[in-house]
Amino acid sequence: MRQDANRVRIFDTTLRDGEQSPGISLNRPEKVEIAGQLARLGVDVIEAGFPIASPGDFEAVEAIAREVHGPVICGLARTGVADIDAAWNAVKDSERPRIHTFISTSDIHIEHQLRTTRDDVKGQARAAVAHARGYCEDVEFSPMDATRADIEFTAEVVAIALEEGATTINVPDTVGYSMPGEYAAMFEQLQRLVPGLAEVTTSVHCHDDLGLAVANSFSGLGAGCRQVECAINGLGERAGNASLEEIVMLLRVREAEHGFWTGVHTEEIARTSRLVSRLTGYSVQPNKAIVGRNAFAHESGIHQDGVLKERSTYEIMDATTIGLEQSSIVLGKHSGRHALRKALEELGFEVDGAALNTAFKRFKDVADRKKTVTALDLEAIVSDEMRQSVSAYELESFDIEAGSDRVPFARARVRLPSGDTGTGSFTGDGPVEALFSALNAATGQEGRLKEYHVSAVTAGRDALAEVTVLVELGGVSAQGQGVSPDTMEASGRAYLRAIANARSTTPRSTWPPENPTQAGAGTEFEEAPAS
Amino acid sequence: MRQDANRVRIFDTTLRDGEQSPGISLNRPEKVEIAGQLARLGVDVIEAGFPIASPGDFEAVEAIAREVHGPVICGLARTGVADIDAAWNAVKDSERPRIHTFISTSDIHIEHQLRTTRDDVKGQARAAVAHARGYCEDVEFSPMDATRADIEFTAEVVAIALEEGATTINVPDTVGYSMPGEYAAMFEQLQRLVPGLAEVTTSVHCHDDLGLAVANSFSGLGAGCRQVECAINGLGERAGNASLEEIVMLLRVREAEHGFWTGVHTEEIARTSRLVSRLTGYSVQPNKAIVGRNAFAHESGIHQDGVLKERSTYEIMDATTIGLEQSSIVLGKHSGRHALRKALEELGFEVDGAALNTAFKRFKDVADRKKTVTALDLEAIVSDEMRQSVSAYELESFDIEAGSDRVPFARARVRLPSGDTGTGSFTGDGPVEALFSALNAATGQEGRLKEYHVSAVTAGRDALAEVTVLVELGGVSAQGQGVSPDTMEASGRAYLRAIANARSTTPRSTWPPENPTQAGAGTEFEEAPAS
Repeated sequence: MRQDANRVRIFDTTLRDGEQSPGISLNRPEKVEIAGQLARLGVDVIEAGFPIASPGDFEAVEAIAREVHGPVICGLARTGVADIDAAWNAVKDSERPRIHTFISTSDIHIEHQLRTTRDDVKGQARAAVAHARGYCEDVEFSPMDATRADIEFTAEVVAIALEEGATTINVPDTVGYSMPGEYAAMFEQLQRLVPGLAEVTTSVHCHDDLGLAVANSFSGLGAGCRQVECAINGLGERAGNASLEEIVMLLRVREAEHGFWTGVHTEEIARTSRLVSRLTGYSVQPNKAIVGRNAFAHESGIHQDGVLKERSTYEIMDATTIGLEQSSIVLGKHSGRHALRKALEELGFEVDGAALNTAFKRFKDVADRKKTVTALDLEAIVSDEMRQSVSAYELESFDIEAGSDRVPFARARVRLPSGDTGTGSFTGDGPVEALFSALNAATGQEGRLKEYHVSAVTAGRDALAEVTVLVELGGVSAQGQGVSPDTMEASGRAYLRAIANARSTTPRSTWPPENPTQAGAGTEFEEAPAS
Repeated sequence: MRQDANRVRIFDTTLRDGEQSPGISLNRPEKVEIAGQLARLGVDVIEAGFPIASPGDFEAVEAIAREVHGPVICGLARTGVADIDAAWNAVKDSERPRIHTFISTSDIHIEHQLRTTRDDVKGQARAAVAHARGYCEDVEFSPMDATRADIEFTAEVVAIALEEGATTINVPDTVGYSMPGEYAAMFEQLQRLVPGLAEVTTSVHCHDDLGLAVANSFSGLGAGCRQVECAINGLGERAGNASLEEIVMLLRVREAEHGFWTGVHTEEIARTSRLVSRLTGYSVQPNKAIVGRNAFAHESGIHQDGVLKERSTYEIMDATTIGLEQSSIVLGKHSGRHALRKALEELGFEVDGAALNTAFKRFKDVADRKKTVTALDLEAIVSDEMRQSVSAYELESFDIEAGSDRVPFARARVRLPSGDTGTGSFTGDGPVEALFSALNAATGQEGRLKEYHVSAVTAGRDALAEVTVLVELGGVSAQGQGVSPDTMEASGRAYLRAIANARSTTPRSTWPPENPTQAGAGTEFEEAPAS
């Protein structure tokens, strides 16, 4: 019998802490698409971004607040008035808005990064929570770097946040330093020092620097926490946050023993993981738990032998539980607009009007070159179209000649943002390098390839190629993706999008803006997003 | 003050459990190279393979036992006489040989996979350990799937293994099912049931299916275990084993609090991770703890701001600790054989005679096309040469023509294992697909591309391209790698090697052979390697 007291809230920070990873540059439609999928997945809270960071961040959070229904939509803010105003303005149209504000309580952060005093931190925390509560009934407060802080000082700050009306207290392990027993003990001590904690939701937020993010999160549940902050595919600063899919499946598979449960529809996990991997360009390693290519593979024949005799000999969960069963959708070149629309709906994409026309044109193009178009192909095509809408460059044509006995040559024609056509050609290195150099010449940009990844969307000779590149341009690294039956065409598209993404990305060294002085706080500071 | 009682032994199973991952096909020189690097890393035990599995496995373990000095060299064996004989014969020339034998104690395995009785399992365990001890003073025993077994029965079997002289008892969480508190409690209960356990080394072996492998391993140390079985990059069945680098750095970074320590030279971690990733073709995701591309990245400007003001604001360990500092080795086209040899030695490669000649030729070829050759380039070239020596096909020449307005065309000439030359050409799809189809035609094989990954060894336009492909051929998946300044040339080489690897790989469905009936046991069975 499930107990309400053991219901764990899943707070997804893929679009905030995850999006802070180097090279990720999601545009607004992509963020809305991910948020929509997170809602289908059934997470309780979506941290949609950090609205003060840039107009683009603000608009993406605002669009998610307006268009995505179900979960609480949360915006992050430092303690300054301008941060909190921006967060509120971005989330206020949501059915269930939340403001999340934070400030460090560790001396190492207070002295070296904030360059202020403990008293000032207390004042800022009080003012921030009070200001946020003036707007919104749902306010979360985080004492950043708490696992390296003086627990008594953290307790004072948390008590202040509670006095001012914070409804969730999240205690992050910002630098991924804690160990399970230690992290649980910290919560137990905080509860002793701040009896009011029992009245609100306490939350864990763990980083994986020592490989303990999931275990630390789980130990926090044992100590009474009932919200887990986590991210799809374990994205996030450095080694990332706790993986949503791992903590959710740990709670599901071992529920009989620990009693915790969530509202997540686990059958959406695989699709969510693919969508996030594709749009962020962050690959998932084959041996990643739950969502890696091998997580459910029993290719080594003797394990197969065991699994054939009795599944549970080597399987503690079923691949269908996370949505890995084969979808039955198969389209071909005779499939019409209606069939496409129905298939897309089944996959969770709502496509209409002009978007449907574009998708249909693209689908026909692929179906002409490929016998069957599956659910996985459609996912890739739709994701690619989302990218297309913001690409400032378009690959009009290209030519490549190469071989072991001749000097590689590439020529490309590109439609530029101005509407003009740029052309470029390049001789030397290899053909892929030559193509990218020709694209540099055609666009007048000096992109530098850092990573290049090609994978097949499905098996078989006529599979769609999905290319991801990481390009550095003017000190900014940005990803680009492209999908096509022709790997070179997909490569060219991916490269042009990476260039466009790099040009539209604010270098992180100037991001976010300084926290403006807030009334009563009197200290200017720069600070990183909470943990 | 470090206490000897808190010294933790690191048992590396990259070459056994790791090598069981789908698509990995390491040849003998590659395995010896990895084992040599593990010795430089300072692991205590190398589980070098499963000698009964195939003649190739046997010979690789034997070569490692003869050539790699320092660590204990361990061979895996089921309980049968033939298994144990093979394991002993493979490791006996090592300075410090170990036999590791195992049998399941969970009813689910006993009933469904072994199809035998608890009494028979006891008899097999007794006979196996006794037989192994007849050869070797260092014998490890593992009750497979112990975390899902009746603890009292596991205790009986462990007591038998101890009676027969086992010197290490490893209790694996074969299916990655356990939770930290539970795993520790299991060891505590085993110790109560089997007092003799206090006299030997107890060991943890954890899988990461629920993201808890490192935490479970660590909890085992708290319960008295002093050996950790783990693998580089967390390789292994399904979601893999505990990552060696994560558990080692957890022990190092938090030593002041927990007191545990190892003999690992952490500065070798980054290089070991690169070598294993390159030779296995298993990429490491950017947000992987310790060895991921982002693990030490502070590209998001405000974290950078903090780190610039004071490193420890966002860093709990220094990148140099794991060997990520830039090596000072830089060679150019005027560097001679002596300089190359010295540079290779500094990198831990001992290259002489014919091998030095080959390496020098290859180095010159690269140096002619690339301004500077760095330590990372040399690592890639030497690894590529190791691959070369076993490739049954050689790319003699190729030609590619492609573009948006013409049908892609590729032609290739390949030296076949017979010494003859095969040629093939292909028109259609994209140029990469056309090249691989032409290589299929030239070799007469029907390879099917499943994954294709390209990365740059270093930054810059003239960087070496390193290509990894996963190809399926006749039901076998195999990896291949290639390195060249020209991506297409590297791709062609990688594809041919994958084809050769697939042809030389025994399909895992017939691997390993059935465990021959052993005297006194009377039951034929098939079983998977221990956990």
